[in-house]
Amino acid sequence: MNAPTPEHHLLRPIPADMLAALRARFGERCSTAAAVREQHGRGESVYDAAPPEAVVFCESTADVAFLVGLCHQHAVPVIPFGVGSSLEGHLLAVQGGVSADVSRMNHVVQVNAEDLTVTVQAGVTREQVNREIKDLGLFFPIDPGANASLGGMAATRASGTNAVRYGTMRDNVLGLTVVTASGEVIHTGSRAKKSAAGYDLTRLMIGSEGTLGVITEITLKLYPLPEAVSAAICHFPSIDAAVQTTILLIQMGVPIARCELLDGHAIRAVNRHSKLGLREAPMLLMEFHGSAASVQEQAETVQALARDHGGEDFQWAKTPEERTRLWAARHQAYFAALQLRPGCRCQSSDTCVPISRLAESINDSIAEAEASGIPYWIVGHVGDGNFHLSYLMDPNDPQEIAEVERLNVLMVQRALRLGGTCTGEHGIGLHKMGYLLEEAGAGAVAMMRSIKQALDPKNIMNPGKVFAA
Amino acid sequence: MNAPTPEHHLLRPIPADMLAALRARFGERCSTAAAVREQHGRGESVYDAAPPEAVVFCESTADVAFLVGLCHQHAVPVIPFGVGSSLEGHLLAVQGGVSADVSRMNHVVQVNAEDLTVTVQAGVTREQVNREIKDLGLFFPIDPGANASLGGMAATRASGTNAVRYGTMRDNVLGLTVVTASGEVIHTGSRAKKSAAGYDLTRLMIGSEGTLGVITEITLKLYPLPEAVSAAICHFPSIDAAVQTTILLIQMGVPIARCELLDGHAIRAVNRHSKLGLREAPMLLMEFHGSAASVQEQAETVQALARDHGGEDFQWAKTPEERTRLWAARHQAYFAALQLRPGCRCQSSDTCVPISRLAESINDSIAEAEASGIPYWIVGHVGDGNFHLSYLMDPNDPQEIAEVERLNVLMVQRALRLGGTCTGEHGIGLHKMGYLLEEAGAGAVAMMRSIKQALDPKNIMNPGKVFAA
Repeated sequence: MNAPTPEHHLLRPIPADMLAALRARFGERCSTAAAVREQHGRGESVYDAAPPEAVVFCESTADVAFLVGLCHQHAVPVIPFGVGSSLEGHLLAVQGGVSADVSRMNHVVQVNAEDLTVTVQAGVTREQVNREIKDLGLFFPIDPGANASLGGMAATRASGTNAVRYGTMRDNVLGLTVVTASGEVIHTGSRAKKSAAGYDLTRLMIGSEGTLGVITEITLKLYPLPEAVSAAICHFPSIDAAVQTTILLIQMGVPIARCELLDGHAIRAVNRHSKLGLREAPMLLMEFHGSAASVQEQAETVQALARDHGGEDFQWAKTPEERTRLWAARHQAYFAALQLRPGCRCQSSDTCVPISRLAESINDSIAEAEASGIPYWIVGHVGDGNFHLSYLMDPNDPQEIAEVERLNVLMVQRALRLGGTCTGEHGIGLHKMGYLLEEAGAGAVAMMRSIKQALDPKNIMNPGKVFAA
Repeated sequence: MNAPTPEHHLLRPIPADMLAALRARFGERCSTAAAVREQHGRGESVYDAAPPEAVVFCESTADVAFLVGLCHQHAVPVIPFGVGSSLEGHLLAVQGGVSADVSRMNHVVQVNAEDLTVTVQAGVTREQVNREIKDLGLFFPIDPGANASLGGMAATRASGTNAVRYGTMRDNVLGLTVVTASGEVIHTGSRAKKSAAGYDLTRLMIGSEGTLGVITEITLKLYPLPEAVSAAICHFPSIDAAVQTTILLIQMGVPIARCELLDGHAIRAVNRHSKLGLREAPMLLMEFHGSAASVQEQAETVQALARDHGGEDFQWAKTPEERTRLWAARHQAYFAALQLRPGCRCQSSDTCVPISRLAESINDSIAEAEASGIPYWIVGHVGDGNFHLSYLMDPNDPQEIAEVERLNVLMVQRALRLGGTCTGEHGIGLHKMGYLLEEAGAGAVAMMRSIKQALDPKNIMNPGKVFAA
């Protein structure tokens, strides 16, 4: 499937002297091998790869600054690359250029346990940072499905299963080191918990998808590991019953840490992939954090709500291992689902609506999915009003592709009508440029473009993304 | 005391035809009366007023758009005005122009109780919004000392006593209506709890101090009123002991809702002003929110910590009235303190540091204050690492003014050395332009300036603030 942009033929070639300069500095860390380029020119989206002309494996902020400086001088595109788990085509080199791979920038730079902060290089993954701070009794909650890099998570304003309690990357980054479009290194924010000093460049960079600069270091907020953690599953007679339970617990202000919906299809996928024996019916997978007493109290409140909606009794994950197994299965749902239909690609919707409109949003989407006959599955960070209805699509069937896109448009337009957004956590990338315009309006998008033009006048930072040509 | 800018003589007069156009549309709502101009040309800062040439009382977003459109056409400055509680000179018309008074835009536009959101006009104050939603069992937590307008609170990224638990304006605004520098109306964000759609214009506007646009409507996150609320005071043998207690409770992750430090001087002020009989010694004023059991558990944890640091037993505010009286006294501390030294102005510092450095930050500042002999008082949102050491300064004594500024520089530079910020919640305004440069660095400030230039090419939006000339 081609990228939906007229720009994928607007290649801006790397001049010979620039390539020579890259090779002089980076040696074998500058690759033009076809397989490496191919791997860096796609993510987990449905699009065919659009490979960059070269891949540079950066090992430091100075490396990135050197690379971007050269790209700036020669007006060549540069596309930051972490682990390649983007779902919306962010990594495609639609105008050619260089992929700036930061995966080797994988050092935890500084832990300040007593301040609940950590500074990491952009290539550190969420699992790595949690491994490295666990012994200090701390954790970092943001967990998109993939074991993504913190740089990529910041660039796409990622969230995940803990966002209902702990917020998203927007809320959990204190400061950044950024290489600007001219190759300059700047620092945003500080280690203070709050600040009123100047424009919020940190939040401007978070969610900018590599179009305003390359994030090379990130200072994160950490949290003390809760005294008590309990996870439970609860099956419901219908998706609607599970969603109504969720809506009520959010409206009551229950400080639930995780509240994930899985439909029967999603459970079938994780059962097969992770060898679980869960009943293949609508289910909430929940987690409670706090003191022992508070966890028990939360659980009792939610159990009462669930019972009122026909929910079965909670089944508790009795050991930490059992809990980890459940959440690992949840995080692998995407890859598990791909195996339900060999050779398919997954087109995952990502709308998010005000909580009171969640039931309507999901129910109507399901009705459309059922009518289409195309295999689908649902998981949702329903406590946030965010869900993913994902179609398992034959990438060689133009009719099916068109039908999925038609259904996707319906879902997005419904979300916008209900006061929501076209993307809760995946970002705009290539796929949602048109929806952004619809959601934000021409005036707001013009303001975004003005900022882009001011900070990247040569349009070298991940060009062709976020804004339709 | 004059504003610290060379620009206060760079007046850009309102042309006669523009004034005529303003009068034609606004009639008596366009005022050039000296008293009105004087009142709009200052805030609560130490600076003498720099009055605007005219004041327009806007009643709608359309009014603001009309006014800004005219200002744009004639390259005349426009300065948004809410209730005038700015502490850093934001409201001074250092280049002349028009004050856009939004205080009559005081309508709650839409409450969505089931989604925990409310949309208000920019002139609605924090007390008003809380009055209007109280019967729905909801509240909005952000509470700077003054009964500020939500527009001003958004523009300065305000916080207050609840930020330790609920975050700041940065965290509690879902979307904005903004009049841009060309007089266009845009909307940012949505009512969804999270979004990854495009640049975060909401966060860019929050804290931009009127320099990028005029905020006319704000959609806020609301919270269910907690099932149980308890407030307590606890006296300590020293400020250090109170601060050490605070540091530990934050490090342990106790979800305390409010944790305010008052020194003996501050207590003396509120005792006199609010007729309280509190012992005039270092004190924490705390509040706990949650279920009855959780509130009790938090309180027990904090009491144990306090006892370990020589804290006395908690004195509980036994009734809601008593609790309200204590917090009202805390919110009036600023005005109460002004009465300690008749004729004085208050120069309030506003640094914020990582929590582990808070004791050092406060102790060294106190030593400097004691050595100076100038009357001072301290309150602090210490759970955030943010405190205000405020000097009661004779505005007619140049030597005292210079000494206070010298001490302020020491405090800010110490905060920056400790990884903190020059302003936790008051903003840059006129006073901290130099500190911003020191804190953020030339590269980051250049990026802010590029954004300002791109979005306000005629430099009409509150010019002369945030960036030194």
